[in-house]
Amino acid sequence: MKRIKITVAYDGTNYSGWQIQPNGLTIEEVLNRALSGFLKEEIHIIGASRTDSGVHAMGNVAVFDTKTTIPPEKICLAVNPCLPEDIRIVASCQVANDFHPRHCDTRKTYEYHIQNGKIPFPTQRLYSHLVTMDLDISAMEEAGQYLVGTHDFKSFCAAKTQAQTTVRTVNAIHVEAVPGPGPTMKNVIIQVKGEGFLYNMVRIISGTLIKVGIGVYPPVHVKEILEAKDRSLAGETVPAKGLFLKEIEYL
Amino acid sequence: MKRIKITVAYDGTNYSGWQIQPNGLTIEEVLNRALSGFLKEEIHIIGASRTDSGVHAMGNVAVFDTKTTIPPEKICLAVNPCLPEDIRIVASCQVANDFHPRHCDTRKTYEYHIQNGKIPFPTQRLYSHLVTMDLDISAMEEAGQYLVGTHDFKSFCAAKTQAQTTVRTVNAIHVEAVPGPGPTMKNVIIQVKGEGFLYNMVRIISGTLIKVGIGVYPPVHVKEILEAKDRSLAGETVPAKGLFLKEIEYL
Repeated sequence: MKRIKITVAYDGTNYSGWQIQPNGLTIEEVLNRALSGFLKEEIHIIGASRTDSGVHAMGNVAVFDTKTTIPPEKICLAVNPCLPEDIRIVASCQVANDFHPRHCDTRKTYEYHIQNGKIPFPTQRLYSHLVTMDLDISAMEEAGQYLVGTHDFKSFCAAKTQAQTTVRTVNAIHVEAVPGPGPTMKNVIIQVKGEGFLYNMVRIISGTLIKVGIGVYPPVHVKEILEAKDRSLAGETVPAKGLFLKEIEYL
Repeated sequence: MKRIKITVAYDGTNYSGWQIQPNGLTIEEVLNRALSGFLKEEIHIIGASRTDSGVHAMGNVAVFDTKTTIPPEKICLAVNPCLPEDIRIVASCQVANDFHPRHCDTRKTYEYHIQNGKIPFPTQRLYSHLVTMDLDISAMEEAGQYLVGTHDFKSFCAAKTQAQTTVRTVNAIHVEAVPGPGPTMKNVIIQVKGEGFLYNMVRIISGTLIKVGIGVYPPVHVKEILEAKDRSLAGETVPAKGLFLKEIEYL
């Protein structure tokens, strides 16, 4: 028996998130089915991050145990033809038998993608959130820096959290504008790196930075929101379709 | 009666191209229906470019005649809620009553989008063509320059063309690599500007430049293909889903 770690990319549009649930198809379920069929064993993967319905990933991580003799690095290429086109295993390798993808020190990188223009561009509609008012990128970048460090992020956590503590460490926040598909449009990417995230945390941080970007809050107000530990003061939870889990680094 | 010019962006994935046809839903048909319903007149648009099934656009152009008193610039914002999310009118304005979008001197810009990596990234699967062998961008750029100018492009035209002449003018070809979503992937964009295009011309040019990029042809071989006036010597017609009509400039 050996333990295989897989890195998974997916388009979350047509799935009810990562984790298996009674109603709706999930990424975990589709991966279990494809791996079990291909390896002819019953496979139950353990995921690193149980992304929400509609969230995309470039590099989520999961592990599973198998008796297969296929070289671990080859599993990704071999299994992909058994998966739908919106899920791809981008890498596979063997890890220690006691490696657990959630019980490790990790650094996760999320990106929140925004279309900033008057009219949503059709080929980006499933992968970004439209903001029609012009965003001030440097104000957003400045505001983000108040969140970097180890803080109580209660203001940036969905009220229904089950977390025992709302203290988390954010390593870096970076806001960048890149040319969009049309002349009057730019794309804005909010990148957040951290050692752990609360429920909806990146989507609430992004919603708050958007309020700074359109001029509703001055950048320093984000510090006051953080210190107030009150969810109702932060911005809205922006839609899942703009969120990408980019990478999970194991430290 | 006034003539309105609209600039249209669309995700071509779910359409049988621009032009109305008996089998399959088209962009033209959906626009006619939405405009007629909104303006309460029978509207028949005339398109500048009848893009193929699966091709996307950032800036196709069409005109129609209307009795409406709505200010021409406001029509785009007003009609969009009547359209499906994969079609958007990005601009509208009044033009001379004899302006015909195909009987004018124009410069069109197309882009062909390639994912260059081992495994196709799910959220790009509908908007790019996968090339798994590493592409040499500078060789592709060099090869493209042999096509710039006024030439007989018979080698780069689908055999079933009805064009009276296969002489066309290409103003510029530019090949660019940008970082892809994953660490081992880059995105490659082939941009072709020209004053007129033959059937499948950009897709055949792109297929030929890909052959140069993977090392099958040396760059200078593209000059020989051009001079031979023989479609069978050029590269394959790469898939429609990678092609974007970016802009039509009226000169």
